[in-house]
Amino acid sequence: MPVNQIQNGTSSSSSAAAATNGCKWPENVGIIAMDIYFPSSYVDQTDLEEFNGVSKGKYTIGLGQLKMGFTDDREDISSICLTVTESLLKKYQISPVDIGFLMIGTETIIDKSKSIKTVLMDLFKDSGNTDIEGIHATNACYGGTASLFHAIDWIESSSWDGRYALVVAADIAVYASGAARPTGGCGAVAMLIGPNAAIVLDRKVRSTYMANVYDFYKPDLSSEYPYVDGPLSNQCYLQALDQCFNLYFDKANRNRDELLNHNNHSEQQSMIELSHFDGIIFHAPYCKLVQKSVARMHLLNNLRLQAHDPSRFDTKLEKYRNVKLEESYNDREMEKLLLTLSSENFNKRTDPSLMLAREIGNMYTASLYACVISFILSDSVENLTDKRLLLFSYGSGLAASMFSARVTKDKAILSRLMKGLTDVQPRLQQRQRVPPTKFEETLNLREKTHNIAPYEPTGDVSSLMAGTYYITDINQKYHRTYSKVQ
Amino acid sequence: MPVNQIQNGTSSSSSAAAATNGCKWPENVGIIAMDIYFPSSYVDQTDLEEFNGVSKGKYTIGLGQLKMGFTDDREDISSICLTVTESLLKKYQISPVDIGFLMIGTETIIDKSKSIKTVLMDLFKDSGNTDIEGIHATNACYGGTASLFHAIDWIESSSWDGRYALVVAADIAVYASGAARPTGGCGAVAMLIGPNAAIVLDRKVRSTYMANVYDFYKPDLSSEYPYVDGPLSNQCYLQALDQCFNLYFDKANRNRDELLNHNNHSEQQSMIELSHFDGIIFHAPYCKLVQKSVARMHLLNNLRLQAHDPSRFDTKLEKYRNVKLEESYNDREMEKLLLTLSSENFNKRTDPSLMLAREIGNMYTASLYACVISFILSDSVENLTDKRLLLFSYGSGLAASMFSARVTKDKAILSRLMKGLTDVQPRLQQRQRVPPTKFEETLNLREKTHNIAPYEPTGDVSSLMAGTYYITDINQKYHRTYSKVQ
Repeated sequence: MPVNQIQNGTSSSSSAAAATNGCKWPENVGIIAMDIYFPSSYVDQTDLEEFNGVSKGKYTIGLGQLKMGFTDDREDISSICLTVTESLLKKYQISPVDIGFLMIGTETIIDKSKSIKTVLMDLFKDSGNTDIEGIHATNACYGGTASLFHAIDWIESSSWDGRYALVVAADIAVYASGAARPTGGCGAVAMLIGPNAAIVLDRKVRSTYMANVYDFYKPDLSSEYPYVDGPLSNQCYLQALDQCFNLYFDKANRNRDELLNHNNHSEQQSMIELSHFDGIIFHAPYCKLVQKSVARMHLLNNLRLQAHDPSRFDTKLEKYRNVKLEESYNDREMEKLLLTLSSENFNKRTDPSLMLAREIGNMYTASLYACVISFILSDSVENLTDKRLLLFSYGSGLAASMFSARVTKDKAILSRLMKGLTDVQPRLQQRQRVPPTKFEETLNLREKTHNIAPYEPTGDVSSLMAGTYYITDINQKYHRTYSKVQ
Repeated sequence: MPVNQIQNGTSSSSSAAAATNGCKWPENVGIIAMDIYFPSSYVDQTDLEEFNGVSKGKYTIGLGQLKMGFTDDREDISSICLTVTESLLKKYQISPVDIGFLMIGTETIIDKSKSIKTVLMDLFKDSGNTDIEGIHATNACYGGTASLFHAIDWIESSSWDGRYALVVAADIAVYASGAARPTGGCGAVAMLIGPNAAIVLDRKVRSTYMANVYDFYKPDLSSEYPYVDGPLSNQCYLQALDQCFNLYFDKANRNRDELLNHNNHSEQQSMIELSHFDGIIFHAPYCKLVQKSVARMHLLNNLRLQAHDPSRFDTKLEKYRNVKLEESYNDREMEKLLLTLSSENFNKRTDPSLMLAREIGNMYTASLYACVISFILSDSVENLTDKRLLLFSYGSGLAASMFSARVTKDKAILSRLMKGLTDVQPRLQQRQRVPPTKFEETLNLREKTHNIAPYEPTGDVSSLMAGTYYITDINQKYHRTYSKVQ
């Protein structure tokens, strides 16, 4: 059923004309439904520590990662997008004809011209729905957020015809053998976007920071692996956090009447700051960086508070009252102090969002949205309603945004979203733990066979879960054929 | 100066809050300013016919192409985007701080992760404006249209803060040695998007057709060349035209009160059909295909007319009254008849849009917008005001849309757009005609050096026009450095 019969493309001309008057943005636009796909195999990070001969805890404590999902040669970016999109449509009983916009965010490029979106059109073929805007957007881990913003904008624009938008954020994150390899992962998140959403995006507060940097990029087109300057990338992430944080709170305070509870007079008088939010959710390249980001936010928030009222500055931070942000990215002593001071905040507001990141690893564009799913899975409908979420999206290169959302007060709407996610934990448990030798072998196979044609994959289809699309063949013209596990 | 001071991010909180009420879509959103960049060298298609030993007229008449622009190893997708974007900002005296959205459409991928958009952020560095949404969108020649739609949607959304959007459509189109090579080209178009535009996009009529096809794609990531199934691609183009045409006119007639002249009562009573438009503008892979598309539209329009009133069917087409569209793509006899019957329409409404396509060749994502520029350059302000344009965008793989626009009635607004384009013809004339031997040599150099690092380009910088960005160096980490011709 379309969201809004009045504006739907199939409606009569008179009612369509009527819809041009009055308020033009539908209410409560945001995420109505979500689904996630992750590989059926994982390597345990403790196994990997032992296998790689590194100190115990290097990956599990140092990076904050527990397990890492990976795929063999049976899956590619198109197959995981097919799997998660079809799964979402089925779970939430959305008819393919009711989708009017579909956009993919990914940096797992297997064709320089043909978008993944065109492959997904196969899911709509039987319904006859070919009128679906959107192609695919790329900039590192940020493409999902760009696609989400475009989807929201479409729904608020004059071109919206009452149908839903779909956003798919998906990536296969693999690194060359070496120090960065344990920070890989793989996942795909699909989101149904429309009015009367479960997670409603706040208006007028999106803040963005973009710059030209070579911190992580993929210039060697024949390889699946990125070029990474790890220390620079960590610094860029925190720098983007600084910029987005300050701009977000500038915008939030300019628009605070819309963000605050209109019935709570005392709330309206105060400035919006970090404690306003119940969940603080990040793009998670590895969980330890997220923890450091929450720590840094403690400093950022205090600097903003003191600009408003010097007495509100945390006295334990006194030494850093006049710190120059741009010079502090490598200040380990400050970082340690901030980690301690922010630990309660981290445990309460952010840690619940990291479950999938710990279990699967970095999913690039899907990472932030997997964190949203984890947060939602961490609590009950009763506790989650009306919760305020702050989100930070980062893509190397670089592109970053901070934005916010409020969980609906409507329990029925939230329950519907959560019902679609009940199989996530069971699916995580069903996965197969694979020894590091097999993991290395698989990645070597991917490396050797990447971008070759013709190619017939050899991976074991029986390990894939029901509903998973997989490659059956890549012919000499690079045409890819897929089947589905029944 | 921002478009709308009231909604601008720097405005006071009270006026920003006030802007949330009432009508939410700004008026007359569309293209305010345009600029085009094309290479300083070209090969003449008659020279190429002789050099390739093909029959005289094969390229010039068979394809409808006169000259083809190309670049050596001094230019890449980032450099041509830098050149055209800076040129537009300077020409129209737009301050970098007044841009709030910038998106690139391209299929010339030189990095699988880092978007061209991030490179363009260097143009905004001095102004301190880092809060610019948008990354880059990819699906063959369609990415510019996708980006344009996202820019328009952003301006109509709640996230718009009164600043302009920029859309850049750019590509370097090169083919492997052989039959397809003469259909290459290179160009970049930048467009400034906002309200009170010179070319105002019509609302609620965008029609889209997307499908999963392998007609033209770039699966060999290590090569700059596409895989092309020429006959299939021609058929897909026409098939997408059929679908978009019918859906466009369905939507246009459902929303005809908004599209028609409210003062002309007789006009409001009739259905909207092809003759409604003064300019019919296409993505032009080669000009002959555009001519065939106008011919096919003659059939499509007659089939729609007869559904409304059988007596309106062109009697010369009687034989095709019940033609099955999907079986007629290779009907040469019908095509010939349609070419004759539509020739006046083509000469009047489409031919003026093909000047740059004939002179430069296929510019992929930039092609449709170069055709818009050609159309604008073909006439005077007096004749162009209030003209209605129908546009068809096609990207293989496939993604296609039909949409429409009206040239402003405001001569000052149109004059401003046209003033920025006065140097296009002189720049075309200034180009250097290069013999086919040199052209082949240059393409071989690009082929040999594509995606290698470190690399120091050898091309002659002195042939580039003032304001052109060029590569000075690609280091071993693939970092690219650019300079500008003063």
